[in-house]
Amino acid sequence: MIFSTSQLRPRSRQLLSEFGLIEVSADDKVLATCEFLVAWPSKADKGLLTKMESLVAVQSLRAGVNGIAFEALRPGIRVFSNAGAFSGPVAEGAWGLILGLAKGANVRNRMVIPRLLDGRTLLVLGCGGIGSEIARIGKTAFSMYTIGVSRSFKSPVLFDEKRPMSDLGEVIGRADVIADSLPLTVATSATLRYDVLKMMKQEVILVNVGRAETIDEASIARILSERPETRFGTDVFWREGGRESFDSPLWELPNFAGTFHTGPGVGNEEALGRAELAAVANIRRFILTGDAANEINRNDYLP
Amino acid sequence: MIFSTSQLRPRSRQLLSEFGLIEVSADDKVLATCEFLVAWPSKADKGLLTKMESLVAVQSLRAGVNGIAFEALRPGIRVFSNAGAFSGPVAEGAWGLILGLAKGANVRNRMVIPRLLDGRTLLVLGCGGIGSEIARIGKTAFSMYTIGVSRSFKSPVLFDEKRPMSDLGEVIGRADVIADSLPLTVATSATLRYDVLKMMKQEVILVNVGRAETIDEASIARILSERPETRFGTDVFWREGGRESFDSPLWELPNFAGTFHTGPGVGNEEALGRAELAAVANIRRFILTGDAANEINRNDYLP
Repeated sequence: MIFSTSQLRPRSRQLLSEFGLIEVSADDKVLATCEFLVAWPSKADKGLLTKMESLVAVQSLRAGVNGIAFEALRPGIRVFSNAGAFSGPVAEGAWGLILGLAKGANVRNRMVIPRLLDGRTLLVLGCGGIGSEIARIGKTAFSMYTIGVSRSFKSPVLFDEKRPMSDLGEVIGRADVIADSLPLTVATSATLRYDVLKMMKQEVILVNVGRAETIDEASIARILSERPETRFGTDVFWREGGRESFDSPLWELPNFAGTFHTGPGVGNEEALGRAELAAVANIRRFILTGDAANEINRNDYLP
Repeated sequence: MIFSTSQLRPRSRQLLSEFGLIEVSADDKVLATCEFLVAWPSKADKGLLTKMESLVAVQSLRAGVNGIAFEALRPGIRVFSNAGAFSGPVAEGAWGLILGLAKGANVRNRMVIPRLLDGRTLLVLGCGGIGSEIARIGKTAFSMYTIGVSRSFKSPVLFDEKRPMSDLGEVIGRADVIADSLPLTVATSATLRYDVLKMMKQEVILVNVGRAETIDEASIARILSERPETRFGTDVFWREGGRESFDSPLWELPNFAGTFHTGPGVGNEEALGRAELAAVANIRRFILTGDAANEINRNDYLP
């Protein structure tokens, strides 16, 4: 039996119905018998996870699984992210921020001196599905030289240089554009602190489509105030009280651009439906074969 | 002898100095002996053109030559545009507007539902250097299906369909993104009037990096008011009293984005220097060989 915290679209439902599927809500007794959970992870699911005594595996509908209430998840329960499902839309969103900042699109009250991208150096932090797609666009559209800094590389061929995370300080100063698509783990939290950020070129464009907390909020605010030529855009915002808060003082800065975590396709039924289907197909594969893509190591996430 | 209305950069000056070069201002007597004019065309040059009695050829530093005071230009004087010199920067600017509008980058007070570009249909109006470069980015970065509507095609291979201008009404309704890079000529003025614009998809993104007057201003304002899902961005603005005026009521509309004619690289010394060098190399070629690129037919521009 599968429990899904949200109502699934017909095509997704069809893929799971043969195993028994309950959506949105269920009696505690029924929950105790469900072996599989499909969910948009939330720390608020702590109670739910405790009730699911037969739980074998969790399939996230989200690419990032940092929101899972790992503290309530018994050891041995397998966890699958939906990595890759949003790569195309999120990478397009990253380029929306990069080009928006480079060209000053929609800055209503003043002329912004355009930055040229052709042939410049692009540094990608986190080279999974999203980071690789960001690199592909930079290479093909703007002939950019690409440096990837990552634990692993989904498409190594897209990177002119592949570097481990420990090399970040060595390469960050060479980039004209930096795209952060890091997941939020114990290892990536506050990767971009003041002392690292201050090694960036003055005229850099930095965007974040990973998780806000991979950048230290006070540090980026300080950098943007100190360096008017540095431009920063983000689709992801820091959490307050466990929830992402779009109410940020950064909006007041002229060298900042934001979108409202819409990168994965908020409100775009086509993008959301396609991503949901990818998650559902993955857990179906796990149920049928005992194997699936995007299994995560919970030790990366435990506090 | 060559007269340049602006001071040229050292590398440009070097290419022309052997022929005799006077910059910025000159006696009427000297002007009367100059055979070549290098200028950012302006209707205010009418007096200058009248004084240049020996004029053989005009080299524009601008890509578009619609600003030349053709009425003061004696028949037989050859005119060369600087087409292509700004293609890269202007195409990047076009994509800044397209992606800015698609993703809502920098719209500070509200969430914008993102549009996906991958696999969508891109219609390019005017398929010279800029239009071809816009198509190339759409094809390579976002796997877009490209339709070109143009009198001629600089890079035919970049267009899945090549259509004459007379086919515009037939294809405009198929496009998810429309990029206007038309020059302003007798034939292109107000190409996009209300009756043509209303054939566009409701959810289209239209951008203009050609000349503002290829779109009828009242018509686009009406379309944007009537159709909140239609998004329009422009780098070029309509002229008032002969000068481009950025003071437009369109800025008040939520489905509008603008840049301040910065596409060609305003304030970006690298882009401007490179474009100047291209123009200067072209007129040098004409002086040495009697032939050069980008010769325009003044009949396209006469009222």
